[in-house]
Amino acid sequence: VGAVLLVLVAACSRPPAPHPPVAVAASTVTTPAPVDPERVLAFTLARSLSDQVGPRLAGSPGDARAVAWALREMKRLGLTDVHAEPVAVPVWERGAESCEIVEPAARRLVATALGWSVPTPPEGITAEVIEVASLEEGARLTRDVAGGKIVFYNIPMAPFRDGRDYGRVVPVRSKGPVLAEKAGALAVLVRSVGTDHARRAHTGSMGRDSAKIPTAAISVPDAESLHRLLVAGPVRVRLSLETRTRPDAESANVVGEVRGTRDPGRLVLAGAHLDAWDLGTGSVDDGAGVGLVLAAAHAFTRSPPARTVRVVLFAAEENSGAGGKAYVKAHEPELGRHVAAIEMDAGTGRVYEARVRGGAGAAGAFAALRGPLAALGVEIGTEPAGGGADTGLLRAAGVPAIDLRQDATAYFDVHHTVDDLPEALDPAGLDQATRALEAVLGFAAREEVDLGRLPLDAAAK
Amino acid sequence: VGAVLLVLVAACSRPPAPHPPVAVAASTVTTPAPVDPERVLAFTLARSLSDQVGPRLAGSPGDARAVAWALREMKRLGLTDVHAEPVAVPVWERGAESCEIVEPAARRLVATALGWSVPTPPEGITAEVIEVASLEEGARLTRDVAGGKIVFYNIPMAPFRDGRDYGRVVPVRSKGPVLAEKAGALAVLVRSVGTDHARRAHTGSMGRDSAKIPTAAISVPDAESLHRLLVAGPVRVRLSLETRTRPDAESANVVGEVRGTRDPGRLVLAGAHLDAWDLGTGSVDDGAGVGLVLAAAHAFTRSPPARTVRVVLFAAEENSGAGGKAYVKAHEPELGRHVAAIEMDAGTGRVYEARVRGGAGAAGAFAALRGPLAALGVEIGTEPAGGGADTGLLRAAGVPAIDLRQDATAYFDVHHTVDDLPEALDPAGLDQATRALEAVLGFAAREEVDLGRLPLDAAAK
Repeated sequence: VGAVLLVLVAACSRPPAPHPPVAVAASTVTTPAPVDPERVLAFTLARSLSDQVGPRLAGSPGDARAVAWALREMKRLGLTDVHAEPVAVPVWERGAESCEIVEPAARRLVATALGWSVPTPPEGITAEVIEVASLEEGARLTRDVAGGKIVFYNIPMAPFRDGRDYGRVVPVRSKGPVLAEKAGALAVLVRSVGTDHARRAHTGSMGRDSAKIPTAAISVPDAESLHRLLVAGPVRVRLSLETRTRPDAESANVVGEVRGTRDPGRLVLAGAHLDAWDLGTGSVDDGAGVGLVLAAAHAFTRSPPARTVRVVLFAAEENSGAGGKAYVKAHEPELGRHVAAIEMDAGTGRVYEARVRGGAGAAGAFAALRGPLAALGVEIGTEPAGGGADTGLLRAAGVPAIDLRQDATAYFDVHHTVDDLPEALDPAGLDQATRALEAVLGFAAREEVDLGRLPLDAAAK
Repeated sequence: VGAVLLVLVAACSRPPAPHPPVAVAASTVTTPAPVDPERVLAFTLARSLSDQVGPRLAGSPGDARAVAWALREMKRLGLTDVHAEPVAVPVWERGAESCEIVEPAARRLVATALGWSVPTPPEGITAEVIEVASLEEGARLTRDVAGGKIVFYNIPMAPFRDGRDYGRVVPVRSKGPVLAEKAGALAVLVRSVGTDHARRAHTGSMGRDSAKIPTAAISVPDAESLHRLLVAGPVRVRLSLETRTRPDAESANVVGEVRGTRDPGRLVLAGAHLDAWDLGTGSVDDGAGVGLVLAAAHAFTRSPPARTVRVVLFAAEENSGAGGKAYVKAHEPELGRHVAAIEMDAGTGRVYEARVRGGAGAAGAFAALRGPLAALGVEIGTEPAGGGADTGLLRAAGVPAIDLRQDATAYFDVHHTVDDLPEALDPAGLDQATRALEAVLGFAAREEVDLGRLPLDAAAK
């Protein structure tokens, strides 16, 4: 990929012609033709967001540039009613950070603060490390064992197509520090929640209500090396983190539409999040999703469906979810007119399965997609859709959810790291995912499709 | 590999039993059986050097620990006459370093100083970047174009089994800065001399006599991103490097032997370098070579050959070559008794070819190895051996050279980076390479083998 990218020139500013919507008649899986990356709009958009904006954590200068980029691109692509909806976002910033083994022999560790970690004192924290293999073990920590120590959570994560191990391991970021703090630990190191074996640390939020002891992720190889050293004897580590929280800043959800032809008041929401962690350039998380929803919407501009397709690029997914909350608040009167919501936030892989969760007739109605999705190699899943983080309050308000599950085998290799770059984008995967997204959006935007409503549930996510 | 390593415990201190030397009678390539990494001595040694010593640039605290490690391991493995031979080494140190795009939009670049780079002023150097695609283009730089600028050499490197592109590209590290300095540039950024597309910068020496302007390598993805931005418009970058040179320090070549049974005065030298760059833990460069020569020598301890096998772990290969020079100076009276020298410094891959360079009869004599090497999948090459960096002065003094060429396709992915870690070691490759090394050392240590002498050449490397 790198060599290919090297010779590419910057995208021109003229919008590409939308290709025709996916035909509904196809019934066999076709072998994908070789893909010219420059003709995959989702890819060139994600790369543009990466190159021209780059890191864009909520409230940062990059975040403001991202909002401007999104407004500009939506207009260029022919969306209508393009506007920014203000969102107050909390602000957390990373400063200088370093981590090193000081005993038995000096060595740097690749480490990075988790989001919302408090800073260390300027001189850092130097202490003996104790290793913990699970949250259950963390819950049994006592002051005798962990008091005055640095607790090191060493929980490996395995790659799966559906990325399911993330859900199993990721609570270490929020609960792990709380358990360590209770036991009197001075700081926490977490083995990166990632499936790679490269020297990069995976950041991610520990939550604003988590422990008030400095917490950093270390790279997987550093975790494995630290483990081997701890088997042999005591290890002391110095951790130094500069982090800052600032007063809330103004960011925005960026919204644009393809207005429906016959029933424009009903709308299908296609969402992704515009913000990204600060280490890489947010190409797969969630530049890919941004590219997908924009590319799919663009495809409808030539021949709009009956209902409106609304693209929402949410603010602050990574640090607080403030964008999703603000959207529901701002659009409360029209939530009943949202017939479905789909959120793309799983990277760059091919879609292998579509799921729905709606009223009683939703699954039956959704079966109409079997043919067109099969032509793309996508199955209809029997499990109900889970939905995404930014659309959780929409589901709680009754809006049916559609999932397009993308192959996430490689997603957590670069997720939340310095390597979340255009190099990690898969144009062929994005091409197929765009077509799958067009198929489900086109389906949900038909006048006659009724996915019903979810039960109202204020407590649901 | 990572998941496997995770569950391994530290190596025990008892030396493993040497396995029997490779049989000379085999004549067909055998399919390799699955390798238990813990039984591959070259692997466990390289990992031990990585974990217990880690970074070990000449003159650093790690360098001193490495000398102690080597003395201890040689004795444990049953080598004799184990000792350290003092080497005065020049000292260069890396300090804090950072690099970021400041215009058109702020973004960090992953960058690292080249060895011997001068520092920037404390506030860094901020200037517009101009891109240069070759040294030829660099030679045409004028003050009009490059004066006051940061020159960015963007020369991609491709992977090959024989790693040949390294030789083509690597002069950018030494000559590139000189050409830029002549044209009035303030600093130099070099696209990493590496074949990966990950966010890691490859360091390496620019030479002590190179330019006196700050010079850093940036990661390949950062180079490609910078290129795309430069196509679109002007880019300004800030580079900040802390580097220091210190007075010469004392390091050592570490030497040990398997004393020959019938003609111990004649010796075959098996070399590798003990020092390593400071970013990773020197697992493949050159922990692998260290492991290979120690493992092969250990295999001879049970049944020593006629001539002596001498292992030399050279000091300071990366920063100056001081160890190779010191060895020749210290051993001048006995250079005539060195019947051959082989140097292992190409990582962890399988050996695919053996070469020799000696007197007129060398190639003919070497043909005796065809059978045993074929059993390992190794061919005899028709080109003369090139030899390694630390044994250059031995060749100039007439000592025949033997090469075991290892598959280097992946070597330059992690070479001189933070990812030169145990994770990059290939136990199966090291197992095969150990057997190939045993075969050629056993051959050269036979009483009757005569590889002749190379023409004396004070100018040869």
